[in-house]
Amino acid sequence: MPPTPDHGSRTGLDLDLPGHVERELTSFLQRRRAEAELIDTSFADAVDALSGFVLGGGKRIRPTFAWWGWRGAGGDPDGPETPSVLRALSALELIQACALVHDDLMDDSAMRRGAPTIHVAFGERHRAEALRGEPERFGLAAAVLLGDLALAWADDMLFGAGLPPEALRRAAEPWRLMRTEVLAGQYLDVLTQARGDESVEAALRVPRMKTAAYTVERPLHLGAAIAGADEGLVEAFRRFGADIGIAFQLRDDLLGVFGDPEVTGKPAGDDLREGKRTLLVALGLEHAETSGRHDAAGVLRAAVGDPELTEERVEVVRELLVDLGAVAAVERRIDELREAALAALAAAPVAEPAATRLAELAVAATRRAW
Amino acid sequence: MPPTPDHGSRTGLDLDLPGHVERELTSFLQRRRAEAELIDTSFADAVDALSGFVLGGGKRIRPTFAWWGWRGAGGDPDGPETPSVLRALSALELIQACALVHDDLMDDSAMRRGAPTIHVAFGERHRAEALRGEPERFGLAAAVLLGDLALAWADDMLFGAGLPPEALRRAAEPWRLMRTEVLAGQYLDVLTQARGDESVEAALRVPRMKTAAYTVERPLHLGAAIAGADEGLVEAFRRFGADIGIAFQLRDDLLGVFGDPEVTGKPAGDDLREGKRTLLVALGLEHAETSGRHDAAGVLRAAVGDPELTEERVEVVRELLVDLGAVAAVERRIDELREAALAALAAAPVAEPAATRLAELAVAATRRAW
Repeated sequence: MPPTPDHGSRTGLDLDLPGHVERELTSFLQRRRAEAELIDTSFADAVDALSGFVLGGGKRIRPTFAWWGWRGAGGDPDGPETPSVLRALSALELIQACALVHDDLMDDSAMRRGAPTIHVAFGERHRAEALRGEPERFGLAAAVLLGDLALAWADDMLFGAGLPPEALRRAAEPWRLMRTEVLAGQYLDVLTQARGDESVEAALRVPRMKTAAYTVERPLHLGAAIAGADEGLVEAFRRFGADIGIAFQLRDDLLGVFGDPEVTGKPAGDDLREGKRTLLVALGLEHAETSGRHDAAGVLRAAVGDPELTEERVEVVRELLVDLGAVAAVERRIDELREAALAALAAAPVAEPAATRLAELAVAATRRAW
Repeated sequence: MPPTPDHGSRTGLDLDLPGHVERELTSFLQRRRAEAELIDTSFADAVDALSGFVLGGGKRIRPTFAWWGWRGAGGDPDGPETPSVLRALSALELIQACALVHDDLMDDSAMRRGAPTIHVAFGERHRAEALRGEPERFGLAAAVLLGDLALAWADDMLFGAGLPPEALRRAAEPWRLMRTEVLAGQYLDVLTQARGDESVEAALRVPRMKTAAYTVERPLHLGAAIAGADEGLVEAFRRFGADIGIAFQLRDDLLGVFGDPEVTGKPAGDDLREGKRTLLVALGLEHAETSGRHDAAGVLRAAVGDPELTEERVEVVRELLVDLGAVAAVERRIDELREAALAALAAAPVAEPAATRLAELAVAATRRAW
């Protein structure tokens, strides 16, 4: 049996980055919990809820892309800076915690990773302890504040990671762009839904910011910047990241309608009920209108954004989206994006084993999963 | 007539710090607006709303305390680092923007600084443009995301201020403690209200975190840390800041019940309607109970947290709080805290003119204002 991998071991980090990220997050959150306890026991309880959320699941996809961005730009896992780099990249999961906690509040989603969302859980606490005021308002406040805490702590974790000053300075640009982009993407998502914008263009604009930039492009950029990559390599990573990121979102959109709730952790059809303006829906509507199937378009329009949508009607929408060729068109788009991304990657001077692993990640993140 | 003061002029900065802070914020937000425009015009519109909020008022009290903390620890306004220090301290106003936007959402306050709050303004936009879904939900999303943006940009502004690496490293501790403390204070505030905790102890715990640490103590600590102050001076500033901060909050609590809406910018009695657990109310209840005036205690209890509280009943509460001696007791507490703070300041080696200005600020921030 091989020895337990640890920091500084090339094999260990390359083979189990998510495990190492979770150890960093655990250690950071434990220190913060101790500080919270000094402030007030009730605050420490709230921090526990945030820690449970951060450590309760997630594929650690952003730190993973950032890690391979760093490795691909020559970052050496046996070098002295590895522990700091690992801590810095793990901070991405705290931004993600903020994004999810606040997103769940905005969408009023009940479940996440198979457990109640933060605002729902604190609303339930309020009810269980028979506190004053409305449980929903208490849940809202807890979700707003714990999301803020995660966002502030993400910066603390990056800043306190122990990176050399020059590396930290290089990290600042992708870090700041990423945070603005994900918030812009979320705002545009909300606005596109509110405007009922059915266009294919709008359906592609949102994932470009919300997922492509935030999930793949900027994490790769961040890792590469920490390693001191030149502009050419950063550019190649960004092209790869933008394409794979959109493909990844398109796959997620398909899972949102067709996925197994056991795997996705949320009820099937929730994306439809929330009125999410996906490319899948936009193409379904476009195909229906151009082929004169106005009845089908009407069924789709009535379903998207209807919070009372039954599982039966979700099944009708699924059949329509297949029948109208929207599913096949999205699958084709995913294939094209993946091929373009792989070509950009192959043409760039990416160090091994990062080149191989990024290609594998590109395939895995966009693979059919049902 | 004296020449227009500008950066680097001792007189200019010392005499009009708020004006200089506003110029820094304006310049930062303009650059960010240009970047937002590249992402999407609609996002740039949302950024305009945030900028309007940040630049639309506020006494810039946190940068002011931070400035005098820096000056009192020997910071030289004619030195080369002054522009960077000014930018770094101005970032405190972006944290404050996040705190206010999110606080207004949590409390569902309608007005702030004489204008509609962010969630209300975006709800109105939704209604005016007849968008889909509930206006309140749209307003909630906009307020969550713009608050997040302000919090993320606060870190960007500090990090990008151009401070020497050593000064930035020293700034990290007060910066991170302050952000955690204000969020802890807000959470404890919400929890204390929900629990209906009437104790004097609870009424003092919340302002210790939410105002004392966040508004005075940590800004002073931040300024002093950037200047490279020794531990003794930081300790003295923190004692001064904790006392003045609580006194400042107690004054604010009095204004929340007795203040002129024209001056406070929000309806008189809103603190009562929101169910805020202030020392004023806690002492009112305590005095009523210990003197056997259970009827008066009942009137107070019924008023605190009643969203339908009329102006007439607010007036009854005002008379009761005076009559029960709660107002006089709070005034006494403010006086004691101010005297203790001034003594701590006088005993510390604070450079002039900071020592004099801090003493003046301590008096001004806690003065009777009606």
